[in-house]
Formats: sequence, C-alpha cells, structure tokens
Amino acid sequence: SNAIGQEKQLTAKTNKGGIVLTSGDQDYKINFNGRIYMDGVHYFDDVTDLSSDASIHDVRLGTKVTWGKWIAKINIGFGNDEVKIKDAFLRYNYSKNSTFTLGNFFEPFGIEASASSGASNTTQAMGIGRSIGLGYTYYTNKFYGSTGVFAGSVDNMNKGDQGFSTTSKLAYTPISKENLTVQLGGSFTYRIPEANGFNEAFNDDDYNRQVVLNAGPEHKFLNADITGARTDMRFNFQALVLSGPFMFQSEFTQTNVTRDDDYMSRLMKDGPAFYVTYVWPTKPKDYPDWYGKLRDIQTKAYYAQIGFLVGDNYSYKSSTAYINRPKAGTYEFLVRYDNTNLNDIDGTYFNGAYGDADLATALTGVGNMSIAGGKAETYSAAVNYYLNDNIMFRLNYSLMDVTNQKYPLDEKIGMLKARVQVNF
Amino acid sequence: SNAIGQEKQLTAKTNKGGIVLTSGDQDYKINFNGRIYMDGVHYFDDVTDLSSDASIHDVRLGTKVTWGKWIAKINIGFGNDEVKIKDAFLRYNYSKNSTFTLGNFFEPFGIEASASSGASNTTQAMGIGRSIGLGYTYYTNKFYGSTGVFAGSVDNMNKGDQGFSTTSKLAYTPISKENLTVQLGGSFTYRIPEANGFNEAFNDDDYNRQVVLNAGPEHKFLNADITGARTDMRFNFQALVLSGPFMFQSEFTQTNVTRDDDYMSRLMKDGPAFYVTYVWPTKPKDYPDWYGKLRDIQTKAYYAQIGFLVGDNYSYKSSTAYINRPKAGTYEFLVRYDNTNLNDIDGTYFNGAYGDADLATALTGVGNMSIAGGKAETYSAAVNYYLNDNIMFRLNYSLMDVTNQKYPLDEKIGMLKARVQVNF
Amino acid sequence: SNAIGQEKQLTAKTNKGGIVLTSGDQDYKINFNGRIYMDGVHYFDDVTDLSSDASIHDVRLGTKVTWGKWIAKINIGFGNDEVKIKDAFLRYNYSKNSTFTLGNFFEPFGIEASASSGASNTTQAMGIGRSIGLGYTYYTNKFYGSTGVFAGSVDNMNKGDQGFSTTSKLAYTPISKENLTVQLGGSFTYRIPEANGFNEAFNDDDYNRQVVLNAGPEHKFLNADITGARTDMRFNFQALVLSGPFMFQSEFTQTNVTRDDDYMSRLMKDGPAFYVTYVWPTKPKDYPDWYGKLRDIQTKAYYAQIGFLVGDNYSYKSSTAYINRPKAGTYEFLVRYDNTNLNDIDGTYFNGAYGDADLATALTGVGNMSIAGGKAETYSAAVNYYLNDNIMFRLNYSLMDVTNQKYPLDEKIGMLKARVQVNF
Repeated sequence: SNAIGQEKQLTAKTNKGGIVLTSGDQDYKINFNGRIYMDGVHYFDDVTDLSSDASIHDVRLGTKVTWGKWIAKINIGFGNDEVKIKDAFLRYNYSKNSTFTLGNFFEPFGIEASASSGASNTTQAMGIGRSIGLGYTYYTNKFYGSTGVFAGSVDNMNKGDQGFSTTSKLAYTPISKENLTVQLGGSFTYRIPEANGFNEAFNDDDYNRQVVLNAGPEHKFLNADITGARTDMRFNFQALVLSGPFMFQSEFTQTNVTRDDDYMSRLMKDGPAFYVTYVWPTKPKDYPDWYGKLRDIQTKAYYAQIGFLVGDNYSYKSSTAYINRPKAGTYEFLVRYDNTNLNDIDGTYFNGAYGDADLATALTGVGNMSIAGGKAETYSAAVNYYLNDNIMFRLNYSLMDVTNQKYPLDEKIGMLKARVQVNF
Repeated sequence: SNAIGQEKQLTAKTNKGGIVLTSGDQDYKINFNGRIYMDGVHYFDDVTDLSSDASIHDVRLGTKVTWGKWIAKINIGFGNDEVKIKDAFLRYNYSKNSTFTLGNFFEPFGIEASASSGASNTTQAMGIGRSIGLGYTYYTNKFYGSTGVFAGSVDNMNKGDQGFSTTSKLAYTPISKENLTVQLGGSFTYRIPEANGFNEAFNDDDYNRQVVLNAGPEHKFLNADITGARTDMRFNFQALVLSGPFMFQSEFTQTNVTRDDDYMSRLMKDGPAFYVTYVWPTKPKDYPDWYGKLRDIQTKAYYAQIGFLVGDNYSYKSSTAYINRPKAGTYEFLVRYDNTNLNDIDGTYFNGAYGDADLATALTGVGNMSIAGGKAETYSAAVNYYLNDNIMFRLNYSLMDVTNQKYPLDEKIGMLKARVQVNF
Repeated sequence: SNAIGQEKQLTAKTNKGGIVLTSGDQDYKINFNGRIYMDGVHYFDDVTDLSSDASIHDVRLGTKVTWGKWIAKINIGFGNDEVKIKDAFLRYNYSKNSTFTLGNFFEPFGIEASASSGASNTTQAMGIGRSIGLGYTYYTNKFYGSTGVFAGSVDNMNKGDQGFSTTSKLAYTPISKENLTVQLGGSFTYRIPEANGFNEAFNDDDYNRQVVLNAGPEHKFLNADITGARTDMRFNFQALVLSGPFMFQSEFTQTNVTRDDDYMSRLMKDGPAFYVTYVWPTKPKDYPDWYGKLRDIQTKAYYAQIGFLVGDNYSYKSSTAYINRPKAGTYEFLVRYDNTNLNDIDGTYFNGAYGDADLATALTGVGNMSIAGGKAETYSAAVNYYLNDNIMFRLNYSLMDVTNQKYPLDEKIGMLKARVQVNF
C-alpha cells in the first residue's frame, strides 16, 4: 500500500569522505555537507596600511535531499559570524544531462563561478555570484550550456524593486581525449541593477541603482562604484587546456554600464518639493551642468594561469565543464598573471573633478563623472596540497602592481596567504 | 551492563520524505529536518509604490532527538540571511496524548498558529507567534486543549524586564466521522507587553511597553502601533468543517489593549531631572492635556475561507487539531474573505490630532490618542499543488480594499504571489 | 581499487544519547551534535534595576567528521538569534594522546575553559574564550599539557591588525586512584590585544587596543574597560580534588595589563593634522598632563567550590583534565565562594578623577588613569539534576556583595537562576 511504500529502509555510505543515506530503489537519498575555510593573510603593504588577519572565512552546514527526480539543497554559510544563504534551491532532473533549478544558486558566468577569495581579481571584480532565479542546464561530453533569469540577490534587504538579470554560458570542448582537453567558451549577462532603497518622501523605488566592481585587499585599490546605473551588460570569454599534469586557463571579462541618473529625484531631495507645479528656479537639467555629465562606463579584465600537478593528471568533468579535484597526495603548482582595469576616465583631471579633454573647455567647468576604480597587474604563485578528498592546504603569494588615483603613493602590494580548506 | 545498554545500533528510514534513525527498542530516535520557502510577489499597487520582490523567505535546518519520553527539537531559520531561533524546546511525553513543553514554541492561539506570510491578515495582525515558556497540551479524538505561560520572545534583546503572557486554546470536535468533521474552538491570551529598552538615566525598566499589530504588504496599510500599553488581552473563536473534498474555516479575533503611559518618565526625559524635590513648573499631568489622553484600544478582525481538493479528501488530525497534508498529486483551490480593522478612533480628526467628539470642545484642545492603524477587506483566491509529501507549489491572488488615513490615496492593492515550498 | 575503497558502508549507532555513523574499519566516522540551553533569571536587585529575563542563551547545531587521523569539527551557535562560530577546526591525531588543532577553539587556560554563564565571576572576568590559532595537546594519566599560538577572535570584524596570544596550560595529577584524585595546575597567557578599528585619516591600524574584563549581571558591577592597553599577561593556578562523592575545585587568576596610549594619534585627531611639519602648540606629552598618566593595571580573582553527588561518585578524565559527567539520575550540590576584584586604584579620588596619593599634589592637577572596575564577593549554592546523558536541570542562587564606585548605592544583589541544558 501507499503508506508502506512511503517508509523505506536507508543504507548509509561514505563516498569521497562525505556521507549519503540511500534507499534501496535509489529513489530517496540524503547527503550532509559542511565546510571550513581558514585563512591567514599577511600584507607587505606599501604606504596605505592593510590589516593582516587570521579568519574563518567560510564555515558551512547543509544538506541535500533527493526524491526521485527532485533535489532540494540547503547550504548555509556562517563565515565571520554572519549568516549567508548559499545554495537554497529545488532542482528537477528533467533528463540525465538536463536540469531545471529554482532558488538561490550561481548565475552561469565564466569559469571561476564564485567570486571567492581564491579567485583572480578579474573574477572578483566582474564575476557574478548567486542570485534568486530559475535556470536550465544541459551538457554532453562536448557541450555545456546553462542559462537563467534572476531577480536580485538574497541579501538585498533594501526596499525598492529588486534587480533583474539574464545570464547564459556556453562551453564547447572540441578535443576531449585522455591526454588532451581543449575547451572554449563564452558567457553573457544583461542586468538591471538592484535599487538601493526606497524614498518614502517621493514614493520612488527606482532610485540609486548602483554597480559596484571591486577586488583585492580590502577592496581598496580596485573599487569602482558606478552610481546612476541603468543597465549592466557583461561578457566573458574562457579557454581551458588540460594535458596530462599541465593545465592552462584564461578568462577575459568586459563590463558595460549605461548610466542615467534621476536628476528629478535629486532635485526633489535637495530643494523644497512642489511636487506637481514645480516653481523652484533650479531645474533638473542644471545637475549635469554643475556636477558633470554621467558617462557610460566600460571596464576590462583578464587573467591567464598555468597549473602543474605532481602526483596526478588533470581530468575534465563534463557536468561542471571544469576540472576534477586531484587525488589524495597530489601537489599543485600554479602561476597566474591578472590584469584588471576599473578605470574609465575621460578628459583631464582638474580641480578635483574630470573636465573636458580640452583644458580650455574644462576651465569653463564642463565636466563629466568618469570612474577611476583603479587598475592593477597581479602576479601570483601558489602551491596546493590535496591531503585527501576533503582536506587541502594552500599557500599563495601575490604581488599587485597598483595604479589608483585615490591611493597615489601605493605602488607594489605583496600578499602572502595561507589557507586550510575542509570540505565534505 | 549500563555501558553496553547505552550504545545501540540504529536503523535509518525515510518516512514521508524525511529521515529518521531509530534504535531497535524505539527508545532513541533522531530526525533531521529542513525547509526552503521561495517567494515571488508582484504588486499591482495603487498610489503608494510597493517593492515587488523575489526572496528566500524561509530556509531552515534542524533536528529532533528522542530519548524515551523526552524529545529535544532544534529548528533554526536563516530566511533573508537572518538567524531566527524557531523551535528550540524540550518536550516530555507525560502520557500518550499529553505533553509538557519547555522552551521556544508557538503559543496556542487560533487555527493558523504562525503569522506566516501565507496566513490571513487577521492572523498576521493579531495572531501570536513563538515565545519562551512552559506549555501543556492534551488531546483526544474530540477534544484538544493547550495552555501555557510565557516570558517574552527569544529575539527581544532589549533591556528591561521581559513580557509575560498566558495563552490557552480549546477545540471541541463534536462530529468526527469519515465524511464530516465539525470543530469549534476558542483561544484566549492575557499579556504584559515587553518593555522596549531600559532607561539608564532613570533606572527605569518598565517604560515604553508597546503593542504592534500589523499585516499585509510591507505592513503599510495595516499597522497599529499602540504605545503606552499596559495589558494586551485577545480572544479568538474558530470553526472548521471538513466534508470529503470540501473545507470551511473561519476565525474571529479581538484585541483589547489597556494603556497607561508613564508621564513621569516622559517629563523626566523632557525636562531637567530634579529627581527628588521636583521643581520644574511642568507637571506629569500636563502631558495628557497637551498631547491628548490615552485611550484603551480595541481592534477586531475575522476571515472565512473555503477549500476544495481535486485528487484527495480532507482529513482531520487530532494531535494538531487541524488538517492533514493532502497526498501527492492533489490540487487545492481556496477562496478567502478577510476583514481586518485596526482602527479605534474616537472623536473628530482635527488639526492633525483626534479631538473631542464635540467639535466645540475639540477646538479648546481637548484631544485623545486614538489609533488609526487602518482597515482592509481582502479577497483572495489560491491554488496549491502538492507534488509530493515534500514539495508544494502555490499561486495566490489577493485584492485588498484599503482605508488608511496615512495613505489616503490608496484604495485597491492587488498582489500576485507565487511560492515554492520544500519541507522535510 | 581506490574507487571502491572510497565508498564504504556505514553503521549508525547511538552512544550516550548522541549519534555516530562509522565505517567498518573505523577510518570514517561522522557525528551530529546539538545543544539547547534555556535560562530564566530573577534578580533581587538592590538600587540599580536589573532586567529579569527568560532566554535561549545557547542553541547549537554541528557535526564532527573523522577521516583516519584527521578530524574536522563544526559547531555553530545561534543563541539569542545571533550567529557565533564556536568550534570550527581541523585536528590531527599525531599519536594516541597527542593532537594538533588548527582553527577556532578554546585557548587552554584554567579549569573552566569557557566563560559561559554558569562559570564563576573569576572565570567570566579573566578567563579566555575561543580564538583562531594552532594548538598542541598532550596528556597521560598524570599529566596534561596544552599550548598554542592564536591570532585574535573570529568575531573581530574591526579593521586593524588582529591581536596575538600564546597560551599554555599544565596540569599534574600526582594522585589518581579510584577513591582519590588530586590535581594541581597552572596556566599562562601573553597577549597583544586586538586593535579596535582602523583610522583611515591617519593610516593607523594600531590604535585603540583595549582589554575589557567583566562579569556578573549585565556586566554592570564588575566591568573594567582598560583602554590604551599594550600587553595583557595573565596567569592562573588551579586545584582539583575528587574523593568519592566529594569534589573541591579552586582557581586563582591574575591579570597584568601594560598601557601606553598613542598620544600622537589622539593629538592628530583632536587638532589639525600638520602631518609632517607639525606646528600646533599642543604636544603629545601634554595629554598625560591633562588627563592623567596611564598606569599599568593588575587585577586578581579567585574562587573555591565544593561539590557533593547523590547517586554517583566523581571520576576523572585524563583527556580533558576534568571531571566526567555524572550518570543518569544523579543530584549534584555545589557551594562556591568567589572574590573578583577589578579595581586597581592609585591615589585619591578627587573632583571626578584619580589624583596623586598626596592630596596637596592632587590639587595641583597631577592625576592618573586608574581603573575602578568594581569588586564583588559572591556566595553561590546550586543543585544540578542529571536526568540522563543529555538533559540536565540546574537551580542556582547567588548573592553578590558589590562595591563599585559607579553604582555606589548597590550593595547586595541576589540572583535566582534556573537552567535546562540539553546536549547531544
């Protein structure tokens, strides 16, 4: 009968150091997962002092439950004593290599999906994290495609309508042999940034949309805060080559933000609000004249890295379009060059603002709101030791060659980072 | 021996999609539970702009452990990236149908125990959530009784002595046949609201007690903030009829708040505090003269809803005095009418305050502190689809007919809500 | 093969009311742990009003996973709706009685490791909690030694370089017979307090280091806030005697804080900052003249307690250097005397500040920044009932005899506390 059918015996197993309980018919399955990421960082700072620090960057608890073709995953982060909903989604396995996902999960963009602290500055600055949405993924041995529509991030508690985005990734692996894998891919996202708050006085929920791109130590030297944003479009190209113990990986990302500030709202806030018949002598159009015209902003970044394994060969995993974890006892050596440029500056910098390219015109006060988020070339070398399927040690040294108008005296920033990573 | 007795083999089973591990003698049992509630809401707002939104309203992880007659339950919420202790209690099964519970759990009041977002405005505004206390529950096939004493909510971190409440619910089910269940019940609670903070300067912990009743979108149109509260008494009548695939459910709730502001403290804060020999010319009794007299406040709300199942019949569960979850594959259609009135207004509204009913007297400045929390009639229609014991989809449309002095231009608010609910 | 070796069947067991799943070769093991601590406290306050309160002081969820010699433990606290990473560490069992631990865990200091609410005022005020670090522990039947280096606490989100500490504990148990255990021990810690924030304007990360020692109800009557701290050195002596149903336990702790405020930074903040060529007439050395000289601070505290069991005898556990939990059904009676002195006052209190001991000199304005954190003698009596291995009930009455300059009218504070403690 139905009631008997519902109660099933489960068998407990460990697989790759994790735990799973499964019913005999494989119809019911439950995993428990967790994570501890411990970090120590020492800065060899230049002029601006940086805070060397030991931290429990990420700690997580979670579970994954499977009922036939449906999977629910919960994974909550508690790093630095703050709650963050990581994965919280319901997934439907439509067919073997094809899934629908609804909830909070990573938007499919680039190789290094998550802007985690191990990622390149390129990915930290312009990568995209998790959002609430609906996604679809399909893959074969040679092809990986993932797309979705999203409605802002789970931690945006601001009032104001949430953002919107649609993000897609395609990866093609023309060569996928035992001793050579070559993958090329691209990603694209179109986004309406989230509103930052709601103005009760003006009943305005569409105000103060903002795109923030930042990376690196304390987000100091790479930090572009693009106010008055209207749309945010990004694309990414990726390449991955695996050959025995060698790996090459590279990504290029470009971000285009269009801007269109709501001068009417700003005026309303600044001046007395004669909401309907407006009489104050200032006009909304005076704002760009006074403070400079908003410019659309374009930023670019790329990195390339080479990896070398001692004790294992690299292998490719079609379902994630990325690399499998090396086996226990493997050492991994990595070098990376990263070039992240968050400047989009037009004209001359004069008297604290960006003026016209022509100095004479600039002197008349004709300005623009360029973005000087800074740029950096970063050289990194890392060694990882995979103790087993669950424990990894990492030592990383980076040298950042920085050019940032806000920190004119800083030139070279050294960073030595140690990490212990426990996953199950 | 004892030591051997303590170590017992456990058998793992899944039951209704959840997981439980049990010792052979049934003396030890452990469950793991979780939840994801994903919500999307689109407002068809009238004049005041509302923030349409997708959110992970509720995510939970927890466990329940049984040692013989003792049960400990932990269930923590992480919705919207905020921690909320939900259930955290120790329960003693005194006899088969009789339990004592100590810790954080729902006060027994009304049908829709929790003021969750699916609940009616009646319940959202005047229902009672979880508190820390000691409760006792007893039930038979025909009778359900639950009572408790409570000492404020777990998330009141304010200084000042916590609140107190005693809450009881009785439900009687005269007819409980296979094709007809009729239940009538009532609940009652008497409460001393929690103090909102402690005034160091005046060594005063009993100040600023407050009763807040609110419901609906962003708590805008239904929001009664009753300051100077002394006691809060509420009662509820409930009716439930199940007949095959039909269900009728209705609740009426009334709240009576007595008020008695501490004018002495207010004066102390306003004027220089000659604590012992008081000489300032203002006297505490001047306050009600200036700002109006506090009035005791009475608010009322009720709703009635009809449900219809396609694919199952409604069935009654004595231990919760409510309905069992319909079986997998069932559709549920619901319509509801809700009438929530958070106004208790006396006299004429004049010059920004409530004056005497007699306009001539009001003109002399004789006023009162009436509460204009707004009122709303809400018509809702919902369809639920129970995919299995763990996954449910819901679509709900509500139309709120609003009357609120603070939002005079808003009349009809439409809300379309979609929810995916995962429980195990 | 390796792949088959990785997938292993697990057996589920309950042990002391907890749950563990183990592989046949004992190489893989996973536990799940949880906790609920419910507290009610009623204050018989003297003059200053204290907030009587019921609270869920501590709720936790966690897990511990063993892969051979490696153990990862995660234990997260949600008490009072706040996230706290408790244990989050990776441990390596170097040999049977010798472990290395990396992550967030208790620094080894004194008997009552954790400054939990059940601890004496001595321990609350001067005990040390968890920090991020690397530790080593070794023990035999007669000897327990633990040492570590630490880099500040997990919840210090302030900018500024983190603190540093090295902490060690040695305990020697010359007599360890069935009817008599005698243990003596000592602990030592040397600490650089954590910086409280980073001053952007002065690029100063080493500013505002602070040692806060506090204990007792709402940290009101025992609270020493030692600003301008440079180093913090503490030592502890402990004694433990167990004899059948009797227990004697005592600790003495002394804290020595050296101070050296950064007058240059204070001056920079107060006056206009001519950073390089400094011209303002005030000089950094004027500060100690105006506000008093910083003094190094020494505080002392000790307690002694006697326990008596009805239903069991006390027994000693070498691996923790402490007592085993009494068996189910045992009553424990405890009395304690605690003397905590957080005053280090020099000279005469005159005109709102501490002057020179000689009144004539004090009148010239020569002062010092003494610390008047208050002192208290506390007499406590408690009864614990161990219902089983997982549930404990506790009733505790304490009378605090208080002397605190900031609360001159408070003399005797009574506290009645009830606790229900669930652990698994």
